[in-house]
Amino acid sequence: MFSKNIQNLKTSPVRELIPYSKKSKDAGIDIIHLNIGQPDLETPKEFFEAIESFGEKTIAYSDSSGQKELIESIKKYYQKMNINYENDEILITAGGSEALLFTLMTLFNAGEEVLIPEPYYANYNSFFAMLGIKVVGIPTKFEDNFKLPSKEVIESLITEKTKAIMFSNPGNPTGAVYSRDELLMLNEISKEKNIFMISDEVYREFIYDGKDTVSCGTFIDNQERIIIIDSISKRFSTCGARVGTILNKNKDFMGYILKLCQSRLAISTLDMIGAEALYRCLDEKYYQSVNRKYMERRDFLFEGLKKIDGVVLNKPEGAFYCIIELPVEDATDFSKWLLGEFSYEGSTVMLAPAKGFYQREELGLNKVRISYALELDRLEKAIKTIELGLKKYNNR
Amino acid sequence: MFSKNIQNLKTSPVRELIPYSKKSKDAGIDIIHLNIGQPDLETPKEFFEAIESFGEKTIAYSDSSGQKELIESIKKYYQKMNINYENDEILITAGGSEALLFTLMTLFNAGEEVLIPEPYYANYNSFFAMLGIKVVGIPTKFEDNFKLPSKEVIESLITEKTKAIMFSNPGNPTGAVYSRDELLMLNEISKEKNIFMISDEVYREFIYDGKDTVSCGTFIDNQERIIIIDSISKRFSTCGARVGTILNKNKDFMGYILKLCQSRLAISTLDMIGAEALYRCLDEKYYQSVNRKYMERRDFLFEGLKKIDGVVLNKPEGAFYCIIELPVEDATDFSKWLLGEFSYEGSTVMLAPAKGFYQREELGLNKVRISYALELDRLEKAIKTIELGLKKYNNR
Repeated sequence: MFSKNIQNLKTSPVRELIPYSKKSKDAGIDIIHLNIGQPDLETPKEFFEAIESFGEKTIAYSDSSGQKELIESIKKYYQKMNINYENDEILITAGGSEALLFTLMTLFNAGEEVLIPEPYYANYNSFFAMLGIKVVGIPTKFEDNFKLPSKEVIESLITEKTKAIMFSNPGNPTGAVYSRDELLMLNEISKEKNIFMISDEVYREFIYDGKDTVSCGTFIDNQERIIIIDSISKRFSTCGARVGTILNKNKDFMGYILKLCQSRLAISTLDMIGAEALYRCLDEKYYQSVNRKYMERRDFLFEGLKKIDGVVLNKPEGAFYCIIELPVEDATDFSKWLLGEFSYEGSTVMLAPAKGFYQREELGLNKVRISYALELDRLEKAIKTIELGLKKYNNR
Repeated sequence: MFSKNIQNLKTSPVRELIPYSKKSKDAGIDIIHLNIGQPDLETPKEFFEAIESFGEKTIAYSDSSGQKELIESIKKYYQKMNINYENDEILITAGGSEALLFTLMTLFNAGEEVLIPEPYYANYNSFFAMLGIKVVGIPTKFEDNFKLPSKEVIESLITEKTKAIMFSNPGNPTGAVYSRDELLMLNEISKEKNIFMISDEVYREFIYDGKDTVSCGTFIDNQERIIIIDSISKRFSTCGARVGTILNKNKDFMGYILKLCQSRLAISTLDMIGAEALYRCLDEKYYQSVNRKYMERRDFLFEGLKKIDGVVLNKPEGAFYCIIELPVEDATDFSKWLLGEFSYEGSTVMLAPAKGFYQREELGLNKVRISYALELDRLEKAIKTIELGLKKYNNR
């Protein structure tokens, strides 16, 4: 009766436990959401001020390709990183999500293959399912902080159906950051095998400890195959303003993306007005202050979790996620139990079971993803809850 | 190299002439846009006031299904029409466009068929092409003001691959309004043949001369198969605020739509804040005042155009479009000529050639679609320009 592709849509691991929280919620228990990457930092005032100064009397359709001033400001934001895209090489989308959907729609026929290091951002699966794209996971190791395998291993996964290699850097859900050399290796593969490279860089500013990485926008020898996915959501704590970007220098590709943009007419005019002000007014100082806040949280979380008996984790290098191994057989069962049966000083924790981020689910069975986009006192309570929860769960 | 479906995307007839306007624009000629349905009425102040009163410091993700208060206000808006949908039978989308895309994605496998009275809203074609849906046009006659053919004719077009019948009422691009009896006939077909009925009702308030029609939401004997597509864009002159709605009582269908909503996380938080205020604060008085304005324009346009030698048109019954037959062989050529070679008192007119709204393009060759969402003085100038343009064009 319904589309076969749509019937294959899975529930996101980020949301799958929500039904289990009902009992705790009804009992008035405070649920600390480590499952979602929703920054709690304030949206910069420039966003609201620009929207309040909107002078038009009618909220009209904006250009399908995006508001011209916004494109100009994004161009300048990239220029500051020595990355040069012309205005018609930048298209504005309804968040990074639409940027990804349109990109995949344009590149893939049903049955074609995407290469992706696993674990990967689970929402990608929705787009793959919608479009009938086959996922080929590139194996990475938890023990190795999710470093990419060798060029030979990756190349051995490429078939004549492989259209693109896709990844997020810094990584959601891993918190890993690919080195310049790892990215250069992917770039070589993209050129040699003539496959596209989809680089989701929405966490670009959230790299800690000076890890040496780059934007794929700097690989100027392969710009026709490199598609940069970007978004204001995390950069400016504006998840509810749906403004994403696709950057690419392949005229055919961008022509098709523009047609997809035209099909939905336009995105939110006011969100673009706000986004334009953010890109124009905020600078390195702002990015650094946000980076410091997340780094402080990263350090606090890492130190706290590694003290828990049996918990294993790598030090996250970027974004605001990490995957941790728990001393349990089934992390999903533990997470449900935490939500439904356990609380500490009136609080409990919602985790995102890691298996949903893997193509080979068995690799994530005893792991969860944690998002640390929360204040330190919330993180402290969450860590304590996990520690005591694990003890009680394992002594049932 | 690229997706076959995406390579099939056509340029919208609404936009296809834009490149031809460059010469006139560069020469400083004022272009009257009769090609686009962009209302020029002011967005009600309630929209802006609600957004200015937004009290949160962070623009966070809203619920994927839509902001709860907005769903509640939309429920009440429908209740006033004696149409009852529960909260979980209402999902909020990024405009009517996303509502349509998600609906088609959920219902159709590639190669399945949609029945649609032609001419139809050209943007539907983008969604059909993306998803590989085959369009089967239901023939209607210009001379008959686009009335639906008999039940037998429509039924004869149904195959085992037909998944849904789809239409907009009031009609874009026709300006026709289906009578209650015509809609009841479609409802019978939907029930008897077990096919879905997708009713795009975004122009619901723009019905003139008291034409007897209904929302398909009133057909309570077939609510599992009836999918209502709605949007604030035209109702409240807020095209740039991307807030649409899907209403349906089939739990499986709505479950899949919800998963699609989750895949793109959320729509614009501020647009929903504004939309909620519009639905809550505005009432019949507002809708009537807008209706009167458009009716006045409709009358003005109709009287003006029908006086032009060789121009044939029906009196539009709803929305703010009409299709007119021109005394030329090729309306596209005439439209390009108008833009590139003709002006009257410093102005010229951009039309939307009608063939792009037809599946059988030949039916629209000598016709254009006109949108009359413009002030009377602009319409007056446009009519004069068309009149003088036709004379000069036919005497070249």
